[in-house]
Amino acid sequence: MYRNHTCGEIRIENIGQEVLLAGWVQRVRNLGGMTFIDLRDRYGLTQLVVDDHSSEEIKNMAGTLGREFVVQARGTVRERSSKNPKMATGDVELQITGLSVLNSAATPPFTIQDDTDGGDELRMKYRYLDLRRETVRKNLELRAKMAHVVRNYLDAEHFIETETPVLIKSTPEGARDFVVPSRMNPNQFYALPQSPQLFKQLLMVAGFDRYYQIVKCFRDEDLRADRQPEFTQIDCEMSYVHQEDVLNMFEGLTKYIFKEMKGLDIVDFPRMTFAEAFEKYGNDKPDLRFGMVIQELTDLVKGNEFKLFDDAAFIGGICAPGCGEYTRKQLDALTEFIKKPQIGGTVLIYAKVNSDGTIKSSVDKYYTAEDLQNWAERLEAKPGDLLLITCGSKEKTLPVLSSLRLEMGRQCGLMDKENFKPLWVVDFPLLEWNEETQRFFAMHHPFTSPKPEDIALLETDPGKVRANAYDLVINGVEIGGGSVRIFDSALQAKMFKILGFTKEAAEDQFGFLMNAFKFGAPPHAGIAFGFDRLVSMFAGLDSIRDVIAFPKNNSGRDVMNDSPSPIAQAQLDELYLQLVKTE
Amino acid sequence: MYRNHTCGEIRIENIGQEVLLAGWVQRVRNLGGMTFIDLRDRYGLTQLVVDDHSSEEIKNMAGTLGREFVVQARGTVRERSSKNPKMATGDVELQITGLSVLNSAATPPFTIQDDTDGGDELRMKYRYLDLRRETVRKNLELRAKMAHVVRNYLDAEHFIETETPVLIKSTPEGARDFVVPSRMNPNQFYALPQSPQLFKQLLMVAGFDRYYQIVKCFRDEDLRADRQPEFTQIDCEMSYVHQEDVLNMFEGLTKYIFKEMKGLDIVDFPRMTFAEAFEKYGNDKPDLRFGMVIQELTDLVKGNEFKLFDDAAFIGGICAPGCGEYTRKQLDALTEFIKKPQIGGTVLIYAKVNSDGTIKSSVDKYYTAEDLQNWAERLEAKPGDLLLITCGSKEKTLPVLSSLRLEMGRQCGLMDKENFKPLWVVDFPLLEWNEETQRFFAMHHPFTSPKPEDIALLETDPGKVRANAYDLVINGVEIGGGSVRIFDSALQAKMFKILGFTKEAAEDQFGFLMNAFKFGAPPHAGIAFGFDRLVSMFAGLDSIRDVIAFPKNNSGRDVMNDSPSPIAQAQLDELYLQLVKTE
Repeated sequence: MYRNHTCGEIRIENIGQEVLLAGWVQRVRNLGGMTFIDLRDRYGLTQLVVDDHSSEEIKNMAGTLGREFVVQARGTVRERSSKNPKMATGDVELQITGLSVLNSAATPPFTIQDDTDGGDELRMKYRYLDLRRETVRKNLELRAKMAHVVRNYLDAEHFIETETPVLIKSTPEGARDFVVPSRMNPNQFYALPQSPQLFKQLLMVAGFDRYYQIVKCFRDEDLRADRQPEFTQIDCEMSYVHQEDVLNMFEGLTKYIFKEMKGLDIVDFPRMTFAEAFEKYGNDKPDLRFGMVIQELTDLVKGNEFKLFDDAAFIGGICAPGCGEYTRKQLDALTEFIKKPQIGGTVLIYAKVNSDGTIKSSVDKYYTAEDLQNWAERLEAKPGDLLLITCGSKEKTLPVLSSLRLEMGRQCGLMDKENFKPLWVVDFPLLEWNEETQRFFAMHHPFTSPKPEDIALLETDPGKVRANAYDLVINGVEIGGGSVRIFDSALQAKMFKILGFTKEAAEDQFGFLMNAFKFGAPPHAGIAFGFDRLVSMFAGLDSIRDVIAFPKNNSGRDVMNDSPSPIAQAQLDELYLQLVKTE
Repeated sequence: MYRNHTCGEIRIENIGQEVLLAGWVQRVRNLGGMTFIDLRDRYGLTQLVVDDHSSEEIKNMAGTLGREFVVQARGTVRERSSKNPKMATGDVELQITGLSVLNSAATPPFTIQDDTDGGDELRMKYRYLDLRRETVRKNLELRAKMAHVVRNYLDAEHFIETETPVLIKSTPEGARDFVVPSRMNPNQFYALPQSPQLFKQLLMVAGFDRYYQIVKCFRDEDLRADRQPEFTQIDCEMSYVHQEDVLNMFEGLTKYIFKEMKGLDIVDFPRMTFAEAFEKYGNDKPDLRFGMVIQELTDLVKGNEFKLFDDAAFIGGICAPGCGEYTRKQLDALTEFIKKPQIGGTVLIYAKVNSDGTIKSSVDKYYTAEDLQNWAERLEAKPGDLLLITCGSKEKTLPVLSSLRLEMGRQCGLMDKENFKPLWVVDFPLLEWNEETQRFFAMHHPFTSPKPEDIALLETDPGKVRANAYDLVINGVEIGGGSVRIFDSALQAKMFKILGFTKEAAEDQFGFLMNAFKFGAPPHAGIAFGFDRLVSMFAGLDSIRDVIAFPKNNSGRDVMNDSPSPIAQAQLDELYLQLVKTE
């Protein structure tokens, strides 16, 4: 037996007991005749004491211990003379009667502490040491607990957890697939799933009624900070449901998660159409932790000889509460902010509401005090507030105002990570026009059902068709998304046609699904949650990387084991593949 | 709302209620003025009645319904005049007041019944229809429940469920990897994991203490009936444990599964060394549902001028209880059986113990009655039993006797699928000599720890070294296997050397693991269960295919969606790959 207790569980009640612990040396303090060793495992820290009562052998061994040595210690629990109320085991210590080194340790390249001195790259290379840090391990424990909670809810609601294949058929729609050459079927390839979409729909055709899976998905995309080539989804599908049934079911799941994970009762799940979200917040995932709603000012500001506004198709603004004292420098910084290429704004007009109610703006020479009062009224500004106004085409200006709104939310401290404001965004457009390829793409995916009342528009004005598609947004982050599916093979065939598939291509790629629909497909709908993102939100993190045990970097590399890597010529030969030299 | 009840829940208490159901038409019976429709969903069957009380519209519609049509039915629950005690809903029926067809259905290519008329290939092509059959769906439900039960146990034992990467580094040791070309790292490849072995060991180095995962693994092997290119493991690892701790923990898991899934108390988990298993049962996974233990007879049979035995290094036999009346034809068939190439036997000698205790054998002319009595005594034969004896080299003869024993177990009806006899096989050899490549291979894997008392033999006689490795065998099927791991980087380096790795190759492939071991690796050990096989055993199936929602065939193909398949040239170009033509 290596141990009979963990390092986190010894308490005052255990005084006098002999216990056996094993763990890592967190710290050794040599105070003259006494040596204190903090022994660490996943469960906590226990203080070991080597003093005059200990044998010479133990004293000598204690002197050789370094950080992260793996040791086994036998000893008697005694009360500490100076207790540490910050530690769960802080009332006691272990008077050592036996000590053995199970494994030595080279000095770690960074400290194994919450506030480590290791940089990002070093910590990723030695991820197994980084994971020793309590903050990082806690994130992974949170992840495990969340999976447990999610499964409890879905199991209780009679969802059948069903594994779908990882080696599937490659389809050109959507993002880029990772592919896997088949040795037994030379010159043919599997793909790794971007989602189990088709399989879960087939499970509905199969009468499974309710399906879920916490499942790895894959996308060969150029990576951003918050993207990983492999990621995890909570993937769900239900039969004989309307959109409303799905929203209620997964509102229930979300409430359950908040309750179980954080003890929070989140009651309010408002719903907002895509159109309204775009008008009021400039994007399809509004952060409802604060107001600062976008207001159109076009009608108020035109015709005052201010060319910039007179020429603009759309003028809109927000009111930043309490920012009326912003300095010239701060305002210039905001202008710089919206001019960043990724934001794409051009101009920022401001108006400060003074404490006496008068208004000072950057365009005073074009507008009367009354004009400015009208602006303030439209934006519901109070004394001390700051109006920020910009203009251009409507499609381009609203996203600029969205970015500005989020930036002001940050600056005003309105984005408390422990304040959770969920929102269903509904009625997404079915299709998006792509200028480059001059064709429509499915905004959600090709299996999403148009709203029944919009089906006629499919022939006349496809871009106007709304979908029975929905996103769950929390604090401005898209946590989940789904749709009611097409379950009629004729409508599905029409969708493929609109998306530019020839009959042959549709048959080749999705023939088995359309065929399945001919044998009695039930109405069905589903949703998928981004599990990594959900966990990172609960962990209060901005990136998903720290809720993944072994993440990849922005080039898709695991720097710890240096993969991907070249493979042997024999492997390539077996796969009937040849490498093409890169320049 | 599509429904307010399922087809499986209406009972006598619901009489008089109006309910709304949706489901598939299982069967339509038109009895003159009345039409009975069996409506099916995942939860059961409900009988719908259309009769004189129904509107003309409903009567007409009922006449158009075909098998597997998807319908919604509104009606009033009433007591059946002739009840069906075999159906959960058999006391009641639904007097239909509203009926609508949600989707029509082409006639399915086979019947959606437990005893379907569909052949294997057809059912796989239309797997979504095959999954509609209750027997098949029940297997998948069993699988989901088993995963739930396994997680409950491991969560309660403080194992942290941790996802490890699917895109990992390719290693040449073990079976063939599936590989995934990296677009962002041209001419480099990921591999799909054959198991999360290295990652779970790193999690132990990281101090996770207890890890598990129910996880997809991949092996690009030529497929046999019971192999799939992707399969699922219950993968576990623990720190600060000896072999005994692991066996106890997972004996506990196995007992818990039996109790929760089948209400069975399985108490007895005997342990047997690999050597003993091989001596007594001729293989490393003895089926303990019956005895028929192999006995060596070499000392009893030599020196009687029977050349076959005199020339053989080893003579062994089994006693088949109650088979003393086997006919010449049956005995010839047994001889044919052991001569099959995959079994490789050469000769079968028999001796029948008559009811009066005399013995009649096929070698009577070489042996006295007393000789034969000695054989019978050694084999603990009783009147009416049949002794079956064969000979050759020991390594080749024991497996022949093993196959013969299992065949006789089948013939004697001793392999009851509901009788579960678990067994731990321990003390496996560490290494296997491969004649072809003239080198040792790791029997389990290269990270398995030799037994401490055998470490000295590594230098002198590596083939004799036993490992701290163990298999859980139930009814002759290897359900799980694992080992205590090496956690000392020097010993690990020695293992790689014995396995023929150059220092450079070991560094290239496993450098990160050996490096990790330098920073304080704890003693650790683990196990992995074949989840598919475990579920199929509980489902009473011989193959794992029917506990997998979308399995692949023996060529690794999904015949439903016809994958793998060719990919576009553009995809190949992006990956810097070129196909090599096959002949």
